[in-house]
Amino acid sequence: MAKPTLEPERGFSRLRIDLAYDGTHFSGWAKQPNLRTVQQELEDFLSTLAKIEVSTTVAGRTDAGVHARNQVIHVDLPEDFVTSETGQNLKYRCNRVLPKDLRILDVQIAPNNFHARFTALRRHYRYQIIDDNQVVPPLKRFEVATWFRKLDIAAMNQAAKLILGEHDFFAFCKFREGGTTIRDLQRFEWRQIDGVIIADVVADAFGYSMVRNLVGASVCVGEGRFSPEWMRETLINKVRIPDSYVFPPEGLSLWQVDYPEPSQYLERIERTIAKRDEDF
Amino acid sequence: MAKPTLEPERGFSRLRIDLAYDGTHFSGWAKQPNLRTVQQELEDFLSTLAKIEVSTTVAGRTDAGVHARNQVIHVDLPEDFVTSETGQNLKYRCNRVLPKDLRILDVQIAPNNFHARFTALRRHYRYQIIDDNQVVPPLKRFEVATWFRKLDIAAMNQAAKLILGEHDFFAFCKFREGGTTIRDLQRFEWRQIDGVIIADVVADAFGYSMVRNLVGASVCVGEGRFSPEWMRETLINKVRIPDSYVFPPEGLSLWQVDYPEPSQYLERIERTIAKRDEDF
Repeated sequence: MAKPTLEPERGFSRLRIDLAYDGTHFSGWAKQPNLRTVQQELEDFLSTLAKIEVSTTVAGRTDAGVHARNQVIHVDLPEDFVTSETGQNLKYRCNRVLPKDLRILDVQIAPNNFHARFTALRRHYRYQIIDDNQVVPPLKRFEVATWFRKLDIAAMNQAAKLILGEHDFFAFCKFREGGTTIRDLQRFEWRQIDGVIIADVVADAFGYSMVRNLVGASVCVGEGRFSPEWMRETLINKVRIPDSYVFPPEGLSLWQVDYPEPSQYLERIERTIAKRDEDF
Repeated sequence: MAKPTLEPERGFSRLRIDLAYDGTHFSGWAKQPNLRTVQQELEDFLSTLAKIEVSTTVAGRTDAGVHARNQVIHVDLPEDFVTSETGQNLKYRCNRVLPKDLRILDVQIAPNNFHARFTALRRHYRYQIIDDNQVVPPLKRFEVATWFRKLDIAAMNQAAKLILGEHDFFAFCKFREGGTTIRDLQRFEWRQIDGVIIADVVADAFGYSMVRNLVGASVCVGEGRFSPEWMRETLINKVRIPDSYVFPPEGLSLWQVDYPEPSQYLERIERTIAKRDEDF
């Protein structure tokens, strides 16, 4: 596949846009014919504003139904448009017109070598579960998954610790042609707040459906079906867990994306591309 | 008006039902022709189950768009139905069929002199605001109100303290024929958590639209339009604040209803009825 265009074309400026969405009524981030997607809504609106065809690059491609508390994209727009429209102005114009389930949090002019996907250091995801067949508070129903058995959070944390670090997460990634599954899992922690069980999951990047696979495997441990060690064995054996274990999208939110200082963008891009050349 | 039936008829048992709802798509609690209301949904479903016409009594009549984290009702059902269906069984049957924006939290057989409205000691409401023209996180959009100016929480708390206690809250109640506006405001406190400004408001009972009036007046203080003392003057002068100050329903939730020990139900009913005879 062709390398992506890494810097804006002549006459264009790069914008970093931070955004949030309720994924309930979106068929995910990525454009698909005849489906409502975040990318399509945004690109259509920005194209109308800037009077050119706009194409966005995203930090974390989220699946249908997955939410984003803070997604990051970049987009290259004509310099004269950027001069007249950036910052608070563009943010407010977007939020006046875009649907309420999609909000612009921030718009900034970015350095030319900022790249929403390739300069990202790590992605933070959060998953929320209500266990033990408890009633889901109506206003929480769009952002939690449920489980009928009581979950042992200590056991889930024990299991999570056993797979931290850089590994081939093949067993926890849905198959995708040509994608690498070697990832650096930097944080995976469970806790309970106001009756909701929350996982914070942080990695340099994630394989396809990886968080929902990790959550599903953790629940198997939390309900006592498997021991915490089974999680590590599964990782090492590289046999993908059954699809029936995988948890649904509504409990998942892209929480945050971290970037290095601008002086390190170039180095970061090169490292990212070298690591997963096949994964464009 | 006729006094309400205080105890169940012969052959009937009284149930206390705790429930929660997302008020967004309800025209409030109380039945109205051709509108979707919580009372109608519940009574229709319970009537079908119990095969008689069921009528409910509610602790806090909520307006269109107002949510409930924990509403309480009572309902009298035939003894043989109650024997076969109570508790967890009825709760799960309801939650399998009722829409997801209406959930049954608990079903209990109640003493005959339990009365959801008249034995209640106090009602707790919560109001949530996002101030300073900040972006509303998409998943919070159904449960917060917004304000464009920054609010001074210390000033709002100062004002709130000046109106605590038993007073005629006429200035903060929408007019309703025959209703008393003398209430005992037991708690009214503002705080900020994760960018959301939260009011906890507790009283023995509330007048029509009283919380949303109190919130609107507080915002006038919080944005610096009026001093905290204005709140107390408004209370004493008994001139109703303008409708344009009143805050919208989506920020409001009925949070909790407190009841005394069963041995005190009868005394509580008598006190409540004596106090607002005209307010049935």
